[in-house]
Amino acid sequence: MTEKLADIGEFGLIHRIDVLLKQEGFQAEGVTLRIGDDTAAIQPREGFELLITCDCLVAGRHFLPGLIKPRDLGRRAMTVNISDIGAMGGIPRYALVSLGLKSDMPVAEIEDIYRGFVFELNPFGAEVIGGNITKVEQDIFIDITVIGEVENGKTVRRSGARPGDMILVTGYPGQAAAGLDMLRKTTSDESLYSHPLVQAYVSPPHRAWEGQKIASSGLATAMIDISDGLLADLAHICSESGVGADLETNKIPVSKPLKKISEQENIQPHLLCSKESDDYELILTCPPHEVERIKEAVGQVSDVKVSDIGIITPERGRMRWIFFDGLRQDITPKGWDHFSKRGENK
Amino acid sequence: MTEKLADIGEFGLIHRIDVLLKQEGFQAEGVTLRIGDDTAAIQPREGFELLITCDCLVAGRHFLPGLIKPRDLGRRAMTVNISDIGAMGGIPRYALVSLGLKSDMPVAEIEDIYRGFVFELNPFGAEVIGGNITKVEQDIFIDITVIGEVENGKTVRRSGARPGDMILVTGYPGQAAAGLDMLRKTTSDESLYSHPLVQAYVSPPHRAWEGQKIASSGLATAMIDISDGLLADLAHICSESGVGADLETNKIPVSKPLKKISEQENIQPHLLCSKESDDYELILTCPPHEVERIKEAVGQVSDVKVSDIGIITPERGRMRWIFFDGLRQDITPKGWDHFSKRGENK
Repeated sequence: MTEKLADIGEFGLIHRIDVLLKQEGFQAEGVTLRIGDDTAAIQPREGFELLITCDCLVAGRHFLPGLIKPRDLGRRAMTVNISDIGAMGGIPRYALVSLGLKSDMPVAEIEDIYRGFVFELNPFGAEVIGGNITKVEQDIFIDITVIGEVENGKTVRRSGARPGDMILVTGYPGQAAAGLDMLRKTTSDESLYSHPLVQAYVSPPHRAWEGQKIASSGLATAMIDISDGLLADLAHICSESGVGADLETNKIPVSKPLKKISEQENIQPHLLCSKESDDYELILTCPPHEVERIKEAVGQVSDVKVSDIGIITPERGRMRWIFFDGLRQDITPKGWDHFSKRGENK
Repeated sequence: MTEKLADIGEFGLIHRIDVLLKQEGFQAEGVTLRIGDDTAAIQPREGFELLITCDCLVAGRHFLPGLIKPRDLGRRAMTVNISDIGAMGGIPRYALVSLGLKSDMPVAEIEDIYRGFVFELNPFGAEVIGGNITKVEQDIFIDITVIGEVENGKTVRRSGARPGDMILVTGYPGQAAAGLDMLRKTTSDESLYSHPLVQAYVSPPHRAWEGQKIASSGLATAMIDISDGLLADLAHICSESGVGADLETNKIPVSKPLKKISEQENIQPHLLCSKESDDYELILTCPPHEVERIKEAVGQVSDVKVSDIGIITPERGRMRWIFFDGLRQDITPKGWDHFSKRGENK
């Protein structure tokens, strides 16, 4: 018989998680108190700022429980937070995990979710140092707070983009959205799980190593991760920096599987790549003469492609597509809004 | 027409919260980046450890939506976290708030929840520096991470109690449970809301100022806050310290309203005071000759009563009631377990 959460109870689960973390997790430097007291405690390092972020995945909204393996769910929930730390130029160090669970969940599934957390944290020497477990009737959630470190003065914000700066993006945005579409259309096909676009959705990479390298180079003027979509997140940079952006349609990086979809469905590739999508790639800006040095810096830690896709313009909030023939078209960016009608399906 | 969350959307709500926090909240020292970027950022102070805790309230489980005013709900959600920081001897400095909300919630109610947060944080010069908002279908939740500060070496853990130490408790434990019982029995009576026992449940005090004073005195050997009940939380100290406890029934502090209930329902007062209850009072231990100095230390910041209720014993995990006639009775402590059958009603 499958062991359920109700069989071992809250304290039984906490014990099991504690054992799992000790066996499979990393013990991070600077932790002075772990799970088992009223709070965790850390000793901050001199010369570093701490970055703090929290992001929550809710079943049916941010993930489809039957369509993602528990370990991948854990990886994804941790990745979305690690990505935020990376987009500031930091490295994740500590995580707190708050779970809303149903009593009939198999304990092995919950342990696998934690294996996903540990898988993402271990490369950074980062650790789950605390958390909370509570019971829900319907909406299972995974709410994670990650604390990262960045050298004093090295954070890269959304607000530093200047007219004339180049706009760069890592990897191939838009893939997660295409993967989600595929899952929605054919939910029963198990083999679909290994499709690269579906993988881009269920188990997206983060670019924290790249972000940290970019930040420590001191060359980027603004940076953000793509959690809403290429256009929506670039719009955040424009808004916070008080600038606009011209994007060249033929410079937007298109992955092979996305190109195929664009041909099959007769959609222009730059539209597929830039729509609402949570890819956790980075968008950054820098002066034109620093583009190569940034690409080199990223190349030291990663094989990920870095593409320059456009230029920052002076007109606040105005974003445009520039076509290969010079035609210009205004863009009205749309990202996810969880409470608007458009956000209903996320 | 009442303005609903669906009317203004996620980004509309974030803007409103940002404005509210700027107008009514405190801007904490050491915050280098607030709401509006990928993460918040802080510059830790030299000579201090950081304490980090997260605690989540779920509707129907930790609060009864129709029976608690939104501002009180916000106060309570923040208090349970502040209490954890206080139980380690720290002072809260920064909070991140992750909310799971339904689209049909009135915006004014959500703002009132934030007013509750701010009400609890402002006295500490503490600030909401970040968070997350997501949509749920059924289980509204408030998940808060609080980061506090404590001078290096001054944390008080659960694990330091030694045989012969006195056991002290602040305030009057058990009141929150009695208040919850009253709410459950007569849910429609609005006047019930101001009853002191109901208030102890919906809007419990925290003892962070007292905890900080106790910790900085260096006199306490162990400390914990009562989130499960006097016995259940004392059992955590016993377990972590590898000791036992003898409690004197006639030394357990009984508030007037609890005394009345004990008479009406013919229950021994020490049982009413020690059962499952989330009172957010402190339990602490110290050598017998330090009891008065600890009471004096607390007296410098608070009028709260501090009672010595028993003594730490060598036998690991054995807890006993000592009656006035010397009779001894073994205790099997029971606290909340969210996934056990007993926890179903919490």
